[in-house]
Formats: sequence, structure tokens, C-alpha cells
Amino acid sequence: MTLEQAIEKLQQVEKAGYALQHARSVLYVDGETVAPKQSWKARGETIGYLSQLTYQQTVSGETGEALAVILSSQENVDEKTRRQAELMKESCDVMHVLPLEEYVAYSQLLNEASAVWHEAKIKSDFAAFAPYLERIITARRRFAALRNPDAPAYDVLLDLYEKGACMAELDPFFRIIREELSPLIAEVSAHPLPRPAFMDRTYPTAQQRMFSERIMALQGLDPERCSIGETEHPFTGGPNKWDVRITTHYHEDDVTASMYSVIHEGGHALYELGVADDLQYTSLAGGCTMGIHESQSRFYENIIGRSRAFCTPLLKIMREVFPEQTKDLTETDLYTAINLSAPSLIRTQADELTYPLHVMIRYELEKALIRGDLTVAELPASWNEAYRKYLGVTVPDDRRGVLQDSHWSTGYLGYFPSYTLGSAYGVQMLAQMQQSFDVWAAVSAGNLRPVTEWLGQRIHQYGKLKRPKELLLNAMGGPLDPRAYTGYLKKKYTELYQL
Amino acid sequence: MTLEQAIEKLQQVEKAGYALQHARSVLYVDGETVAPKQSWKARGETIGYLSQLTYQQTVSGETGEALAVILSSQENVDEKTRRQAELMKESCDVMHVLPLEEYVAYSQLLNEASAVWHEAKIKSDFAAFAPYLERIITARRRFAALRNPDAPAYDVLLDLYEKGACMAELDPFFRIIREELSPLIAEVSAHPLPRPAFMDRTYPTAQQRMFSERIMALQGLDPERCSIGETEHPFTGGPNKWDVRITTHYHEDDVTASMYSVIHEGGHALYELGVADDLQYTSLAGGCTMGIHESQSRFYENIIGRSRAFCTPLLKIMREVFPEQTKDLTETDLYTAINLSAPSLIRTQADELTYPLHVMIRYELEKALIRGDLTVAELPASWNEAYRKYLGVTVPDDRRGVLQDSHWSTGYLGYFPSYTLGSAYGVQMLAQMQQSFDVWAAVSAGNLRPVTEWLGQRIHQYGKLKRPKELLLNAMGGPLDPRAYTGYLKKKYTELYQL
Repeated sequence: MTLEQAIEKLQQVEKAGYALQHARSVLYVDGETVAPKQSWKARGETIGYLSQLTYQQTVSGETGEALAVILSSQENVDEKTRRQAELMKESCDVMHVLPLEEYVAYSQLLNEASAVWHEAKIKSDFAAFAPYLERIITARRRFAALRNPDAPAYDVLLDLYEKGACMAELDPFFRIIREELSPLIAEVSAHPLPRPAFMDRTYPTAQQRMFSERIMALQGLDPERCSIGETEHPFTGGPNKWDVRITTHYHEDDVTASMYSVIHEGGHALYELGVADDLQYTSLAGGCTMGIHESQSRFYENIIGRSRAFCTPLLKIMREVFPEQTKDLTETDLYTAINLSAPSLIRTQADELTYPLHVMIRYELEKALIRGDLTVAELPASWNEAYRKYLGVTVPDDRRGVLQDSHWSTGYLGYFPSYTLGSAYGVQMLAQMQQSFDVWAAVSAGNLRPVTEWLGQRIHQYGKLKRPKELLLNAMGGPLDPRAYTGYLKKKYTELYQL
Repeated sequence: MTLEQAIEKLQQVEKAGYALQHARSVLYVDGETVAPKQSWKARGETIGYLSQLTYQQTVSGETGEALAVILSSQENVDEKTRRQAELMKESCDVMHVLPLEEYVAYSQLLNEASAVWHEAKIKSDFAAFAPYLERIITARRRFAALRNPDAPAYDVLLDLYEKGACMAELDPFFRIIREELSPLIAEVSAHPLPRPAFMDRTYPTAQQRMFSERIMALQGLDPERCSIGETEHPFTGGPNKWDVRITTHYHEDDVTASMYSVIHEGGHALYELGVADDLQYTSLAGGCTMGIHESQSRFYENIIGRSRAFCTPLLKIMREVFPEQTKDLTETDLYTAINLSAPSLIRTQADELTYPLHVMIRYELEKALIRGDLTVAELPASWNEAYRKYLGVTVPDDRRGVLQDSHWSTGYLGYFPSYTLGSAYGVQMLAQMQQSFDVWAAVSAGNLRPVTEWLGQRIHQYGKLKRPKELLLNAMGGPLDPRAYTGYLKKKYTELYQL
């Protein structure tokens, strides 16, 4: 096979893989949003078939040969082709670990598990979900052992979401966070701030839908390329930069819940929308790692969205959409409200300060589950015990406990640390961004364009073209430092709570 | 190849074809409902790739061999396998007409044409859509010539939607309808009935959404298997009996528009929902022909939905959902309102009496377009002239004229007659049904179950298993008779208008 033929083969497999991924992506989004409940029955079969095609295309001998040819003459191919080949080699190695039937069966298991989890969560019925979780853990453990028998299984899984992440780095990362933040959390809890009245008013779903559109416009999300749906568990999906979907969940008694979910998913969406045109329809479209993806969502949600400066444009919109509910609301009250901190039950609704402990709990439990130190049967009790120990709260039922997140039902074991890594990356990006322009002046003027442009130039445009380390260094100006993150939180909360 | 191997091959191709069709179906529904506008840019590429896979699977030499083996030993295979082979042979012959690249290019053209038509309709800009229609007509003409050079091109297209339909039968069918109904339409127009006041009130979209749910429940649509979305042009889609989607379009100044669109699409949905379980995930799932599909939708929409008996349960629901707007409404007024007849512009909102003339106009124009007697450039003028001539109305703009229907943008040339064939089939089914049970007693009690069960037994359960002729004979008790249809309309409208 000549280099030219190899490149042609690569592009052909890329195109096929992208089309199949496109179809799966829309089947997933549709299944989670508007598809009727029983649609899962046949969707599994179809997703299984599409997975099979992807596997066959990627793992074929001819593809392997093409990749070998390209990777052995790297100096003669452009950056884009080289990186495509490198990533396809990785996918190929990951898929090749399992025989085809097992690969397909696993994707069908996830489709079914997802439907079961939805029901189980509504009914707070962990027993219904447990056998699926059991099977998913067994499958993931088996995958990890085959992928790299020399590494701890959980490290193999972490690496799928955050290239290079491992327990040797994450254990001290979370230890520092816990040690630095726990005393502050205790102090904040001991000095609660008064709760502004607007928080306890009713916000009808119809009004909140209009509010979402306004928030999306403020964030600069192009409605012709990004739409919003409603799901139990908000997420961002969609196959390419012309077709991004975010979802939210409305709570009529809590206007901030959906609002921050929209801003968070909007951050993910801006990343996907900002990838360069010429990377579309290749495997280089989309986010570099999940940690970097979460750095973007949490940057908008917290660093921008819960800043003092953001309260100015935010309050203007709230007054227009909810004139009755916000008639006595001031910017100061709003800033307090969106940053009130208290140990709580639900990760996605947690404040910025206690949030990393929610993640740490999942990290510890996942480690134990994968290592085999914890059984699925014991999981709810361990969950509840961890929430008592680290956050001091009592979990009333599994719906608000171990069943709250969709991740495990979709096979995402090893994903959670990405959230906290992302938060930490974001704090270091902010420091760099502030050297380029006056971030808070732009934000308080309701102008988020320079923020998105800065992130677009350093992160979004590249998709997966650059390797994670290089990309992060370019945006953060130095290696990850958990104390930069805890320092940011300590400063913010010490001032807010006047400690 | 042994018979056993042939059957295994057939089932494998069926499964693959079904999965690809499932994915395309969801991509289509999603694209028409919630996907962001620009999503069409990459969807065409993906649909093209999926079409290519379908083509390659269906047209392969191995599939051909398997079909030959099965069809040459029909006595040794069961009805289901035989019919699967027969239908796959048909699809194979239809696909094989075009080379792969042309087949794929055509499916991409349709994806693009659909996006262009949406825009063109909104802006009433026929010129924007014209080049796409031109290309579609050229492609269809070429397809027809290759498929059967000895038959008139339009007959080849008609046969795609209604097996065996041809101009030799449809010309007299439409002539009888026009001759029988035109004098009645003129007389009805000369004796207009007073318009009940409730028709001119405002019906907020949010309330209409609730109303749709009530109508769907009355019609017996299982919400776990059938969901509703909103589109410019209502349709029924979805890949299988566990996943059916209907759509509607709300007009706040016209409560009956969406109502009858829901009942119409609901009739299609009941067909799909009622196909036997063991036909799912094969090519035998889904409706037998488009005419038979339309017979079900129009049966519910008109024969049931616009009957005197239906006004009883309908009014009850309207009073609950729209108490203000319907406080002075009586059943008699409601019956009048939903059957008011007047020549009008929009097919989907036309009354039962003038509707077949809307179809006839499209039938005549399509014939001329395909034959080459009419150019795309001349089409809007011919459309407007036909509306003046047959319905006596002046078309104010192309949005309410030639651009109103989505069919041509999706390549459906030859589809329209299915609507009127379906209406006529339905009238003959009603006569048979009335011999089984008291239809109007059940309907006025709000109990549509026996109606759906009767249709389910004679039509729905079989999917594509029976051939169209056999299925229709079984449900209609005799061959198609346009005078049964015109007779039904003449009786209904003569009584209603007291002529």
C-alpha cells in the first residue's frame, strides 16, 4: 500500500465512521428527548448494528495496514492526517480489545441499561438497576484487563476520558482539594447567609423556556446551529458544529437549577460550535478530552456565570422575563443567591464550593467498585455513608442518592473526575485570559464575545487536532495546580461570606 | 446456495436494511422537528452514506442469488419469508435501476431540497426552490425510463406508492369524482351555512398542545409508543411499532386545523402501531401501500372524525380544554363547523367535499410535469390557473399555492392520488364495518376501540405481509368503486346543507 493509498483509505474510514457516529448521536439525543418511551426496544438492535459497522470498518486489516503506512512515514504527512491516524490507531486498539460480538452486545446493554435507569430513578428503585450496573462493571473490568493487563483497571478507564489521567495523580489532587476545602465548607455552613426571597417564588416552565432562549442568546449560541430540548438529566449532544443540542430540566420551584444547567451545557456547545470547519466530518471534530470539555462548560457556569460581573446582564434579563418574581431583586442579592453554599444531595445542583466533594465521593466509590472492594449491593449504603461523612447530609432515598446520575447507566465509569479537573483547568485559564483583556468589564457589559473568542483561539478551534497536554499548556500557561483552584474558591467564598 | 443458506442471507440483509432504515427514519423525523436549521449541512452526507450501505446490501450478487433460490422454491418457504423475498426483489429491482453514485446523489439532493423548500415556502420564493424541483423531476424521469422504458414514466412513479395504480385507471377515477362532485360543490357554495362563533376565537398553542394529548388518548394512541412533535407540514414517521411519531402545526386562530391534522396522523400511527409483533424488524413492518395508509388516516379524520356521532365525545373534551372559547357551543354547531365546505387554497385544511379536487389538480400537474408538457417555470401559473378553474379561488402567493406541500421536495411525485384513493377505500370499509357492529353508537360513546380493532384485524396486523389487492378486498368486500365514495359525500353534504 502506497502512502497515497493509505491516506485515501484513512479518509474513507473517517467518513464512514463519522456518518455512523452521526446516526448514533442523533439516535441517542432523540431517545433521550422526544422519542416515545418504548422506542428503546428496537433502538438497541439498530445501535448494535451501527456499532458493528463501525467496528468492522475500524478494526479491518486494510485499515490497520493504512495506519501502519501513515504512522511510519509521519514526516511526509500533514498535521491533520497524522493526528487522524494517531487517533484512529487509538480507537482501533480500544475496539480491538473486544471481539465484535462482545463489542456489539455491550452497546446494546447500554441502550437497555439507560432505559432501565430512567425508570429506576423515577421509582427510586435501585434493585431494578443493580443487575445492569453489575453487568456494566463486569464488562468494563474485563475491557480494562484486556486493554492493559499491567495497569490498574480504573486507570485504564480514566484514560478513556482524560488522556493520561491516573490514580497516582488524582489521589493527591482530590486529597489536596478535600483538605483545603473541608474547613472552609464547615465555616461557611456555620455562617449561613440570608436566602433572598426571589428564590422561593414560582417560575412557570413556559416562562423558563423563554428565559433559556435569552440566556443562550447572551452566551452567543447560534440558534440555527444549537437547539435546546428537555430531559431528566441535562447533557450536550449532536453530531457536528452545525447541529449541537443542549438539554435542560425545569424545576418550577427553582429558577437557578435550569439556568445554570443551560449555561453549563452552553459552554460545552460553544466548544463544539467553535471547532474549525475543516475538521468537520473527521474524527478531529469535537472536544479534545472530557476534562477539557468540562473545563469549558464549568468555565461558563461558574467562573463567568456565578461571577459578580455576570449579575448585571443576568438581572436585566430576569427582570424582563420574570417581572413579578424579581421586582425586589438587587444585583447583590442575586450574586449571593447564585453562590449560596451548603452541603446538599444533588451534584448537578451543588454550589461551586461543595461540588468537588460530590465528584470526589464518586471517584472513591468507582475506584472501589472497579477494584472489587465494593459490591453493587453494598453501593447504596456506601454512597449514603460517604455523603454523611464528607458533606454531612442524610440521603433520604436512592433517587436523590446513588441513582441521581446517568453516567453509570451509559458505561461512563471513570468520567466524573473530568468535572473537577475541568474546573481546575478553568481557573488557570481565567488567570491567562485576564492578562489579555479586562474580563469582568466585558462580562458586566453583557458582552461574552471576547471570552468565547479567547477560548476559541486557544481551545475550541483545534478540536482534537492538538494533543491534550499541548492544548492545556497553551491555555493555562503552566501545568495543573490544584492549589490555584482551591485558592480561587477560598478567595471567592471568604469574601462572599465575610469570613 | 442451499435454501437454508438463502433464507439466512435474506434475514441478515433484512436486519441490516431495517437498522439502516431505522437510523434514516430518526434522522428524518429529527431533522423535521427539533434539529437546528443548519443541521442539514452534514445530514445529507450521513444519509448518503447510509443509503449507500442499503444499496450495497440489497443489490449485492449474494443477495440476488439468495432471492433467486427462495423465489424458485416458494412452496418450501412460509408466507412471511416468501413475501419478504418478493418485496426485497422489488426493492432490489427498483434500486438496481440506478448506479450507486446516482442513488446516493439523489438521496443527498432530497435532503438539500427539503431544507431549501422550507425556506422557500416561508419566503414564498418559488424561484429558490425551482432548480431543485427541476433536478428532482429530471432524476425521477430518468429513473422511470430506466425502470420500465415501455411504460409511461408517471405510471412507473404511481406504482411506487400504490402498487398497480396507473393513469388508465386514475384518469376515469378522477373524472367521475370531478363530474359527480363539481355540481354539488357549486350548490354548497351558493347556500353557505352560518359560521359558528367559536371558530373565530383564539386558541393558545399551550392549550392546543393539551388538546392534542386528549385527542390522541380518545383515538387510543399509546403515549409510550407514539409521541407528537411540531412541524411546518404535519406527517407521521418513526421506525417501528414501539416508536411512532406524529407531528402537527398549531394555528392560534383555527382550532380545527391542528385537531384534524392530529386525527389524520393518528390514523396513520394506529396502522403502524397495529402491525403484528413478529413482522417488526423486517421489511414487512409498516403499511402495505400509501393508498392503504391514507385510507386509515382519512378514515379517522373524515369518516369518524367529521361524523355527527364523533361530535359527542369531541365536544366534551373541547369544553374541558377550552371552557371559555366553547361555552356557547352545541353539538349541532360543532358538526356544522367541522364540515363547512368552501373552495379554498390549502389542501391540508380543505373540507372533505372539496379535498379530492385539490388532489386532482396535483395529479394533473404532476402528469404534465413528468410528461414534459409543463416546465417548472410554468408551474406556478398553471397551479394558479387550475385553482381558479376547478375551485374558483385566486391564489395570492406561492406560499399558499404551489409551495404549500412538502411532497415534491422529498421526491414524492406520484404520491398525491393515494389520498383520494385512500378516502374512497375508507368509504367502502365503513360499509363493511357497519355490518359487523353499530359504528355510530360506539363512536358517540367515545369508544373507538371496536373501530380500531376491526381495522386492526383486516388491515393493520398484516403490515406488508398480504398483497394490496387481497388486503383491500378483505376490508372493502369488493373492488374500488368511485361512485361509492361520491355517493357518500353527496348524501352527507345534501343532508347537511339541506339541498
